[in-house]
Amino acid sequence: MREPVDVTPVWMMRQAGRYLPEYRATRKQAGNFLNLCQTPELACEVTLQPLKRFAFDAAILFSDILTIPDAMGQGLYFEEGEGPRFRKVIRSAQDVEQLPELDAGSDLAYVMDAVSLIRKELNGSVPLIGFSGSPWTLATYMIEGGGSKDFRVAKEFMYNNPESMHLLLDKLAKAVTDYLNCQINAGAQAVQIFDTWGGILTTSSYLEYSLGYMKKIVSNLIREREGRPVPVILFTKNGGLWLEAIANSGANAVALDWTIDIGTARQRIGQHCALQGNMDPSILYASPSAIKNEVGNILASYGSGDGHVFNLGHGITPEVNPDHVSAFVDAVHELSSRYHA
Amino acid sequence: MREPVDVTPVWMMRQAGRYLPEYRATRKQAGNFLNLCQTPELACEVTLQPLKRFAFDAAILFSDILTIPDAMGQGLYFEEGEGPRFRKVIRSAQDVEQLPELDAGSDLAYVMDAVSLIRKELNGSVPLIGFSGSPWTLATYMIEGGGSKDFRVAKEFMYNNPESMHLLLDKLAKAVTDYLNCQINAGAQAVQIFDTWGGILTTSSYLEYSLGYMKKIVSNLIREREGRPVPVILFTKNGGLWLEAIANSGANAVALDWTIDIGTARQRIGQHCALQGNMDPSILYASPSAIKNEVGNILASYGSGDGHVFNLGHGITPEVNPDHVSAFVDAVHELSSRYHA
Repeated sequence: MREPVDVTPVWMMRQAGRYLPEYRATRKQAGNFLNLCQTPELACEVTLQPLKRFAFDAAILFSDILTIPDAMGQGLYFEEGEGPRFRKVIRSAQDVEQLPELDAGSDLAYVMDAVSLIRKELNGSVPLIGFSGSPWTLATYMIEGGGSKDFRVAKEFMYNNPESMHLLLDKLAKAVTDYLNCQINAGAQAVQIFDTWGGILTTSSYLEYSLGYMKKIVSNLIREREGRPVPVILFTKNGGLWLEAIANSGANAVALDWTIDIGTARQRIGQHCALQGNMDPSILYASPSAIKNEVGNILASYGSGDGHVFNLGHGITPEVNPDHVSAFVDAVHELSSRYHA
Repeated sequence: MREPVDVTPVWMMRQAGRYLPEYRATRKQAGNFLNLCQTPELACEVTLQPLKRFAFDAAILFSDILTIPDAMGQGLYFEEGEGPRFRKVIRSAQDVEQLPELDAGSDLAYVMDAVSLIRKELNGSVPLIGFSGSPWTLATYMIEGGGSKDFRVAKEFMYNNPESMHLLLDKLAKAVTDYLNCQINAGAQAVQIFDTWGGILTTSSYLEYSLGYMKKIVSNLIREREGRPVPVILFTKNGGLWLEAIANSGANAVALDWTIDIGTARQRIGQHCALQGNMDPSILYASPSAIKNEVGNILASYGSGDGHVFNLGHGITPEVNPDHVSAFVDAVHELSSRYHA
């Protein structure tokens, strides 16, 4: 993560996704999104698709953050044009207590098979990043029964049943730890924890209910394998207020959303952590020259030296023109060489 | 705003709203939401409703932030269960150029009539706050044609047509200035600018496309009337990263959403501005004792002294039990006296 490089490395959250016609074809072949996640050969195929088109410097496992609650018996499903839904929801202390322990190696064997297969197919060309949702983010979906606009039910549960919420998060933290360690053992060379919804919390609730459990996970992950470090990246969307706390979590890198200036973030925490990010994904709707201009702004704001992995500030959206992704990736490589010795 | 007080004053964004059965009755009587906004007697009635139930220390004009684009000919309408929509949208330089200038006093006379009437009915009991949406926030709705999940169209327009976007924002800033000054002349004793969507921007875009225009407005507002100052409050949701810049806008008070710790915000900008906020509206779903506990946390975090107006970090939501609002308001008054000399 902080090794000397000639140009700034770049990958993209959700780089294997619907903006690619070849992804849409494979998904169609799979029948639905869940089948695609659960069939290692197809998950491998879509993971590799963006690398054939673009000069990305890393692959990221194609999967979904909700595989864990699904494997714990919550019954994940997707309705066409809707977000994820669960057949069972968590609404009481009893629901939390009855939640089984995850054995990621067997319950989520299809993910580990995909990781092994992708790693083999990559054949050393670029590193493979594994990932998981954060306990807090998983909990919001499990309590709400899907996505939410204001997370009313999840927050109500947290405020009225803090002990049950902590038990749920503790169970999820154990599950995530096991899940990520199994991915590392299967071949993942770095892992990212996606805390998509930590940013909807107050500062004290974020520290207590979200970051606290990510810290626990970080301290129990395998940090070296095959004689090389396995970096851990933490991403809290809308977490800019809490960068110092996130940087002190023990993670190697902090992924930034697009709202914070990366130069400011470097001043605040760059001595502790590498930084990943942070272009607004919406800029990919703009012209290639506007994209290149923004890439230049971000590189200039970060300044000289290593410790920056270029990325978007959130996942790429389905309507983006793939040619704009080429413009983005090429601009990062072209414009960044002057910032490296 | 910064006058000595015995207890911390409190009001609530969207305090006249759907959580009140009497509001729902008046809205039913009006036929629809727009009629309610456009009938001064009914707007006055719903503005006063929460003051009859709760010990709020201010009234806020009942209206909608989208009255301005509606008066500029965009054709605002609401579909049942949907958010606001516009019949006309802004998608080109020509659309922006053709947008007429607003004469708020005549084009939005119904708002000024409501302000005069409310002020008269309040009869000095509590001050009346007027408001407007920010230019950036209005622009997002006008370009998207309504609300949006990712503001794709608005951002695409901004990135690809920066000059047209600036012209649009300039026109809107003039309209907002005129609108707020007319409200002040009609009797509003303070005004708040709601920048609901500034927080979706990158730091540099926020400063250029949102805060820059709010500053322009602030510098052209009537700041004293009837021998008393007319305070200006700026609210950028998810603006915690930019507090210093917001505090230097010339506004008297900064309204905070719930993600930032108010004590931290006071350290950062409390010498420049009063602070308003910042309880998570979702806490109103929790038990009265959990609500009281959170009120205590926020008061303790702010600490001793004046310069704090208690509020939620965003508007109250329709499903809240009115009894929980009583618990909230009473807790602020009861627990805050010890922080005032």
